[in-house]
Amino acid sequence: MKLYDGGRAPNPRRVRVFLAEKGISVPTELVDIGTLQQRTPEFTKINPMQRLPVLELDDGTRIAESIAICRYFEAWQPEPPLFGQGAVEIARIEMWNRQIELDLLAAIAAAFRHLHPAMKAIEDPQVPAWGEANKPRVLKMLTFLDGELSGRPFIAGDTFSVADISAMIALDFMKWAKLRVPEDLSHVRRWYAEVAARPSASA
Amino acid sequence: MKLYDGGRAPNPRRVRVFLAEKGISVPTELVDIGTLQQRTPEFTKINPMQRLPVLELDDGTRIAESIAICRYFEAWQPEPPLFGQGAVEIARIEMWNRQIELDLLAAIAAAFRHLHPAMKAIEDPQVPAWGEANKPRVLKMLTFLDGELSGRPFIAGDTFSVADISAMIALDFMKWAKLRVPEDLSHVRRWYAEVAARPSASA
Repeated sequence: MKLYDGGRAPNPRRVRVFLAEKGISVPTELVDIGTLQQRTPEFTKINPMQRLPVLELDDGTRIAESIAICRYFEAWQPEPPLFGQGAVEIARIEMWNRQIELDLLAAIAAAFRHLHPAMKAIEDPQVPAWGEANKPRVLKMLTFLDGELSGRPFIAGDTFSVADISAMIALDFMKWAKLRVPEDLSHVRRWYAEVAARPSASA
Repeated sequence: MKLYDGGRAPNPRRVRVFLAEKGISVPTELVDIGTLQQRTPEFTKINPMQRLPVLELDDGTRIAESIAICRYFEAWQPEPPLFGQGAVEIARIEMWNRQIELDLLAAIAAAFRHLHPAMKAIEDPQVPAWGEANKPRVLKMLTFLDGELSGRPFIAGDTFSVADISAMIALDFMKWAKLRVPEDLSHVRRWYAEVAARPSASA
């Protein structure tokens, strides 16, 4: 088994944090996104989508998409459960993970990819108006989350889940997009301080 | 249990097709997206994201996001499995469902929401340049899928899965965005004819 890792980008980190929470260690090979190594003909054979991370199993099967890789490890080693147990909890965690992805992570990514000069080679064409349109969406979702987190410890309920990992990597990604969590969102800040203090956060 | 349904929009239909494949019948309440009923204060209490569908359980728990609702029913009634069984199949189906969503459904949705005059009230601001930028992405993904489907019957492998449902609703959504599957993508057309002929497709 081998994990093609993409370093500090949000999705590769999402998988590393997930593995750290599971206590699973996987041999990794670093693919340098700084030099666009994920776009070389060699890596395109490994993942035609030219994205990272990719998990390669011993039989040669390759799994792309960070959440698909996390689900592989959840099925392989269920404890501790990070996608939930039982129909209701599984559905609630999936709902929150999706909303974090759709309404927070995707909006931050759009603001970064369509406005940052360094992303010209990746996001073609850059549409600055689309980047700008996403900035207020980030703030709106954070404000909504602040209300939600006033009533419970974690994104999807009483226990830490993959939705917390997605939300943490989203908040850390905000720096790249030159966005900041407003000072008055105290519940988001309390939640972030807690998840960022977990040993897995440094993965 | 009650399903707040959104009629002919892609995500409500995704859940109805999934339920039809499972042979599950759920009482539904139609929310009229034509008159923006999902944006009323009443419905915003049911789903603050103002999106459909939403599943309401007997204890009042509400599950939004179509794939989260599908996962609820997959856990509730595992047969026939539409998210896979075993770590590798689960991961492969999740990978394909994600790639269909990210690289096909989201691109079609962007072309529709940012270019169609009727979407002005929903997508604010519309960014036509972003809608146009997504059109070639749709074609690129369809062309990639055509190569994949030359070697296997279904999107994620030898069996029908939720990834086929996502891809079918994506292709049907193309009409709304005034996009067409090119005639020469014969494998995509063969696959589509097969999944569209299943009884579930009329759900």
